Amino acid sequence: MAEGLADSPFLAACWGRPVSRTPVWFMRQAGRSLPEYRRLRTEVAMLDACQRPDLVATITLQPVRRHGVDAAILFSDIVVPLVALGFDIDLVPGVGPVVAEPFRSAADLGRLRPLEPDHVWFITEAVRLLLPELGATPLIGFAGAPYTLASYLVEGGPSKTHERTKALMLGDPDTWHRLCSWLADVTTTFLQVQVAAGASAVQLFDSWAGGLSAADYATYVLPHSHAVLTALQPTGVPRIHFGVHTAHLLSLMGEAGAEVVGVDWRTPLDEATRIVGPGHALQGNLDPAVLLAPWPVVEDRALEVITRGKAAPGHVFNLGHGVLPTTDPDVLTRLVELVHRAGS
Amino acid sequence: MAEGLADSPFLAACWGRPVSRTPVWFMRQAGRSLPEYRRLRTEVAMLDACQRPDLVATITLQPVRRHGVDAAILFSDIVVPLVALGFDIDLVPGVGPVVAEPFRSAADLGRLRPLEPDHVWFITEAVRLLLPELGATPLIGFAGAPYTLASYLVEGGPSKTHERTKALMLGDPDTWHRLCSWLADVTTTFLQVQVAAGASAVQLFDSWAGGLSAADYATYVLPHSHAVLTALQPTGVPRIHFGVHTAHLLSLMGEAGAEVVGVDWRTPLDEATRIVGPGHALQGNLDPAVLLAPWPVVEDRALEVITRGKAAPGHVFNLGHGVLPTTDPDVLTRLVELVHRAGS
Repeated sequence: MAEGLADSPFLAACWGRPVSRTPVWFMRQAGRSLPEYRRLRTEVAMLDACQRPDLVATITLQPVRRHGVDAAILFSDIVVPLVALGFDIDLVPGVGPVVAEPFRSAADLGRLRPLEPDHVWFITEAVRLLLPELGATPLIGFAGAPYTLASYLVEGGPSKTHERTKALMLGDPDTWHRLCSWLADVTTTFLQVQVAAGASAVQLFDSWAGGLSAADYATYVLPHSHAVLTALQPTGVPRIHFGVHTAHLLSLMGEAGAEVVGVDWRTPLDEATRIVGPGHALQGNLDPAVLLAPWPVVEDRALEVITRGKAAPGHVFNLGHGVLPTTDPDVLTRLVELVHRAGS
Repeated sequence: MAEGLADSPFLAACWGRPVSRTPVWFMRQAGRSLPEYRRLRTEVAMLDACQRPDLVATITLQPVRRHGVDAAILFSDIVVPLVALGFDIDLVPGVGPVVAEPFRSAADLGRLRPLEPDHVWFITEAVRLLLPELGATPLIGFAGAPYTLASYLVEGGPSKTHERTKALMLGDPDTWHRLCSWLADVTTTFLQVQVAAGASAVQLFDSWAGGLSAADYATYVLPHSHAVLTALQPTGVPRIHFGVHTAHLLSLMGEAGAEVVGVDWRTPLDEATRIVGPGHALQGNLDPAVLLAPWPVVEDRALEVITRGKAAPGHVFNLGHGVLPTTDPDVLTRLVELVHRAGS
């Protein structure tokens, strides 16, 4: 572990240990809210940027330098391991990931190959470039959860309804579980590579899990997320597990094996800690849209999040979802200062 | 009241009275899942169709004739009263409603005029055409709730984040409440016109309410939905109140004044009735995506909904959201037969 990392407020909060101040970072902090990011991206497509170690390192560092957040998160996209495996996926601006040949049935199982660390050499290289620059600031590794990845592969692109995904899941559970077991292996390898290279924590994003009932989540999704998180346990780094629209799933998400459960803004943190249970730190949960309101509103709401977060054994301040591209970056910087001042 | 309406299982279930069979209808039953609808719409734009009494009547009747559902719902769109007031709104295919001049600040309050029944004469005329055709099948009136309408006006179109809406709501609550009070008046008039013409029930759709925390919903939204539902009370027809992603709002939605609370598929109905309270019938809540799975799965899930629905004082079987355009209409017909057979 790099010198100083042991004193990281972010890592302490993840483990539920005493902190000198409430740590704060922002989902999508490395992204479109920053002019320096938009400048870099004018000439490079998203997926190309994710596979160039120099750009990954530069973009990952941008919010750390600008805002003084307590953690960096590797600049990547959840489809990166699938692209590295040779899936023809295009990130269409304004649309999202579009998969040329979607996974539709058992016949597609033959297309699934294991991810090898060499497939994502650029991640290892990016982390190697990052560590000396980050110093005492921990780096969070990043991956999409099996359900969310499966939904992109099955739908062939973003979907509001996930209807093909659910039809496959309910209509052919055997194929579904094989697909998700493979995705759990891919995700595990992708995160293990990041930790081996030097990431100090990992976050598993299950963006679409909130579209499922608790019963379906427990049967068709939880076992696969649990497999990923359990496989990461021997690495010794804290594991964060996050989804949106998960008010009805928080208790189950707490059973998936992560130290930290990320909570969106719909469930106050004091209520969330009662649901998730005393064994977990929480991450969240200011509504990102609040940052577009006048500062006194931002301040008021942020202080409320800090107060409610004290009910949890550990609290990593964050938004309840990613930074909106329309956010004024100066508001993010001011918010970091506020959290550091108030949450100590 | 038309002859036979008094015996309607749908109306009985809404009032929590004994029923001869579980009534069933489907949100968006008049729409793109039906080939006869798609044929009609090839030559007429959506908003034009909504303003032509003959087409409104024909489209409203299509699913009643095809599926034998227990209620018709007036074919319309939530922006219809705003269009009738002269707002320049275009329903862009694949996008949704786009407002030419969005509502952005207090300066826009001067643009708000009251809705008069004459503005929506085509609704009155459509219902007049419909009633003799419907006979003993009740007609449900339809309107968007103030928050959802406000979000379209403020964002200028569909939004995943409702960031401008929330920024206005939190940053200028006075203007927000004026906008929503006006929308509550518009919605009330729109529904009163439908009941005066002969609708036997009304449903208030708050599609986007689930994006708010319970605290914000209670402060900024509930009073306006409550105003609409209370104003409809003297009409004597049952009132249905529905939103999606509302697991965390169900208790508050029950306080808004409706007899029936619509529940999406994320909250089992036996759990929902405990949250909403014993004074309310429930409507829902099969996941529309389930209809794309093989029939035995549909049957199994539908029977589970019926069983759990028995915990509520009244149960109107429905999907947990609108019919997906990709749904096989024969599955809907078969589902109606199943509900009628099983839920009696």
